[in-house]
Amino acid sequence: MLENVKIVLIETSHPGNIGATARAMKTMGLSQLTLVKPKLFPDPEASARASGADDVLQQATVCGSLDEALVGCEWVIGTSVRDRELPALLLDSREVGRMVAKRPLSLGAIVFGSERVGLTNEQLHHCHYHVKIPVNPVYGSLNLASAVQIICYEMRMAHMERLEKEQHEYEPLAKNEDMSQFYEHLENVLWQVDFLKKHQSHKSMLRLKRLFNRAQVEQREVNILRGILTAVESTLERGT
Amino acid sequence: MLENVKIVLIETSHPGNIGATARAMKTMGLSQLTLVKPKLFPDPEASARASGADDVLQQATVCGSLDEALVGCEWVIGTSVRDRELPALLLDSREVGRMVAKRPLSLGAIVFGSERVGLTNEQLHHCHYHVKIPVNPVYGSLNLASAVQIICYEMRMAHMERLEKEQHEYEPLAKNEDMSQFYEHLENVLWQVDFLKKHQSHKSMLRLKRLFNRAQVEQREVNILRGILTAVESTLERGT
Repeated sequence: MLENVKIVLIETSHPGNIGATARAMKTMGLSQLTLVKPKLFPDPEASARASGADDVLQQATVCGSLDEALVGCEWVIGTSVRDRELPALLLDSREVGRMVAKRPLSLGAIVFGSERVGLTNEQLHHCHYHVKIPVNPVYGSLNLASAVQIICYEMRMAHMERLEKEQHEYEPLAKNEDMSQFYEHLENVLWQVDFLKKHQSHKSMLRLKRLFNRAQVEQREVNILRGILTAVESTLERGT
Repeated sequence: MLENVKIVLIETSHPGNIGATARAMKTMGLSQLTLVKPKLFPDPEASARASGADDVLQQATVCGSLDEALVGCEWVIGTSVRDRELPALLLDSREVGRMVAKRPLSLGAIVFGSERVGLTNEQLHHCHYHVKIPVNPVYGSLNLASAVQIICYEMRMAHMERLEKEQHEYEPLAKNEDMSQFYEHLENVLWQVDFLKKHQSHKSMLRLKRLFNRAQVEQREVNILRGILTAVESTLERGT
């Protein structure tokens, strides 16, 4: 997953930030760096700040335009700390990790604008998603490489979470229609046992749905729950 | 919460890292910086890299020892990217945010060692917790200010999550003893309706407990669930 994500820096002014970006990427397991019209590159300051991540710098691609940088990408995320009229869906940094983890095999790019102006509106129009790191509202001046660090960190965390889930023999979640049938069955039984009569039925059902939705019920679990309801109904029929 | 957390840097070699740390802290809403025996401070390189977070540098405390830096702290977390024999409980960076969010009013410190050697074993013995940022195993060379950035980011995310929960009229969670009584009641009813006879009873109960534990049941919800079980029992008694 992490090898399929490209970090794209546009018109970076300080070569030190390019080096620090390479280092930030490599600490989190990313390696594909693309530079669109960097002011100075290669540069000794970039190599100094890369500090052992020189391989990322050496393999970096330099492009003349954002279009060229995004060739082959199935999804593109643009970063900004400012609020604006957005042409794309807005995610926070944590959601970016989760979004990428859902597409581990598709090629994508995360695009960072220049230090001084960030992404222009024109550049943002290339992006399917837009990410905002939730910075301090009175001081949002995140360094470029620090922004890359946070986004790459979130992707690594989401990647590791995914691996962990896969190790713990992943259980398929219940489908939406199975949950609807379960809720209908539950409501029927709750009327039969006079539970819903005594309470505000709509509100109680909403609360119960909220509880089960929060748990993200697995397929196997919804089968158990349906089994319980059927057992209650059978016993009631036998008893009356 | 964020104002109560002190960032402590020990024997920092590069003043640029001190400035970058101040900037990283301020973007995430932290302001208390303490420096233990910095090699060069104040220094123009620190101010240059602070880039608008000069107030954090100006208010920074310089100490001669870690003991002095930790006066008044109720909890202390030491950072390291290396694995070692640990004298303290090990957390990952995300858990640090959650841990701090649980103690919003208590004063605490997060301690970062020098660039070259990190925290010494002697320094680690001052820490109640130990945090490891999950870096790339083949290249874990996280820059000092980048490590501060990630930890401060996690604290900010946990802080915001807490604020959001408080806004959505926070519901108290069910106590452990209430959940035990619910599970006991549930098991009784499941025997009464012949559900547990037909299945492997222990395994089914484990699965159900796993489901409800995952949902983090609220006090009000466990009351509803108990009410349902009582309604089933009453109907069965009336029917037979």
